[in-house]
Amino acid sequence: MSGRMRWADGFIAVDWGTTNRRGYLIDPEGRCAQEFEDDRGILAVKSGEFEAAVGEVRDKLGNRPMILGGMIGSNRGWIETPYVPCPAGIDDLARGLAWSPDGTAAIIPGLSYSNGRADVMRGEEAQVLGAVASGEIPPDCLVCHPGTHNKWIRVEGGRIQSFRTVMTGELFNLLKDRSILADLLGQPAAAGDAFRSGVTDGLSGAGVTAMLFEARARFLLGRLDKSDAASFVSGILIGEDVRVGLSGHSGSRVVVMGRPELTELYSAALREAGASSEQVDGEQAFIAGACQIVERIG
Amino acid sequence: MSGRMRWADGFIAVDWGTTNRRGYLIDPEGRCAQEFEDDRGILAVKSGEFEAAVGEVRDKLGNRPMILGGMIGSNRGWIETPYVPCPAGIDDLARGLAWSPDGTAAIIPGLSYSNGRADVMRGEEAQVLGAVASGEIPPDCLVCHPGTHNKWIRVEGGRIQSFRTVMTGELFNLLKDRSILADLLGQPAAAGDAFRSGVTDGLSGAGVTAMLFEARARFLLGRLDKSDAASFVSGILIGEDVRVGLSGHSGSRVVVMGRPELTELYSAALREAGASSEQVDGEQAFIAGACQIVERIG
Repeated sequence: MSGRMRWADGFIAVDWGTTNRRGYLIDPEGRCAQEFEDDRGILAVKSGEFEAAVGEVRDKLGNRPMILGGMIGSNRGWIETPYVPCPAGIDDLARGLAWSPDGTAAIIPGLSYSNGRADVMRGEEAQVLGAVASGEIPPDCLVCHPGTHNKWIRVEGGRIQSFRTVMTGELFNLLKDRSILADLLGQPAAAGDAFRSGVTDGLSGAGVTAMLFEARARFLLGRLDKSDAASFVSGILIGEDVRVGLSGHSGSRVVVMGRPELTELYSAALREAGASSEQVDGEQAFIAGACQIVERIG
Repeated sequence: MSGRMRWADGFIAVDWGTTNRRGYLIDPEGRCAQEFEDDRGILAVKSGEFEAAVGEVRDKLGNRPMILGGMIGSNRGWIETPYVPCPAGIDDLARGLAWSPDGTAAIIPGLSYSNGRADVMRGEEAQVLGAVASGEIPPDCLVCHPGTHNKWIRVEGGRIQSFRTVMTGELFNLLKDRSILADLLGQPAAAGDAFRSGVTDGLSGAGVTAMLFEARARFLLGRLDKSDAASFVSGILIGEDVRVGLSGHSGSRVVVMGRPELTELYSAALREAGASSEQVDGEQAFIAGACQIVERIG
């Protein structure tokens, strides 16, 4: 750690994902004093140019020590940070930090799960364990974290016990941008009747790859309005996702964490499945996680 | 029909799909005398240029009457040909032909199915009903027709009773070309251990959108060789597809119709599901279907 930078004087936390990054300047009291978001996710940064990309963040938020979470720690990011195996708590994340050569930046490790199934995450762990450590969510619950790849995260005794990834967001985007359904999926999805109808189908487990074509056929046969198609298809995929996520976890207290436009759709789908849920803002949870880890540094 | 063209003197049959077209010159004895395949599928032909594209076929195969099947009859093709509702046999296809203004070309209608579910097909109907009418497949069977969109087609008493589309091929291609799995899916899929492992997962119904990410996680954790990933992912999708297709049809005689590289994977997956199957060449079936319909013209 450079002598002129002290964590106690405030620091920068960056949630650095595949397509976007969000930076926060945290003051000595742990409050967010300044923030920004841009599209300089790891795929927009060439190998060898990550030091410069980190410098851009300091240009915006000040010359402070930094803690970084998300895909920035992947083999395609800045400094590859080995996965920490489950079960894992906030202390394990602090112990697994990878440091920049000059000691002014630390990268939060992702988690792996391996037990018959295999799974990995990078980014959600800081949010979930931050929310637990700050008391925002209970130490025993099931977290649903929608995004490009939705994660169902089992939290027990304040630690992440296991998790499961579902490719819902990425599949929806592929269908919207490139598939035979693309013409139908221009509207944003909304949690109305068409969405709930799709959710019911998805929850049935009758085969999501068959149901997807059904949207096109219903449209061609005049049984689905184009304006409802995105909601119906989103409902199918999220219904299947919820079916997977709740499997083996019935009766769990479910927390849906992430961006509001997604947490609302997942909460609506969980209601269709008979599960109640509460919505938690992922951004605040990330800041809480970063603060909790920084408290454990040094 | 132009006076100088008589079907009895031989004709041209074209299986005109979304991305390719295959043309056959059929001699007066019903044998294929000449053929070609090119990439002038309907998406490669601009609206208003279909007459010229039909002319290209006659330039290659001769100035004969033509019968055309597949997406050429869709709203994006040459002459929109209304769907014939199921149940439908070869006579219904002949009655549903749409004719070009000069009467020298006929388009085979697609089929629709509407009974709670909704579904449509364009192209497979001529193959399946041609194979039935020519005795190549039995009048009661379940046909699996893999391609961009796999179709499970219930044949009863020589007619298509119902069918169901599964988007397996298109999804696999989207994943291979554009998804986070793209790096892993460069190899062709083969029906070995990795494929069968994927099929077992797909058949379990535990959630294909979750299983897909599993391939990436297994690779990252050193539990899946890159060379096996395409087979594993193909197995997951085809296993799910077979689960959907056999649902409600257990004990059926299954005929797998299409291109050999796909029929072999589906046959292997059907074996894993405990169902025996026979493979039938789709090209010969299309020619048989075209001949059967032409016999019913006039």
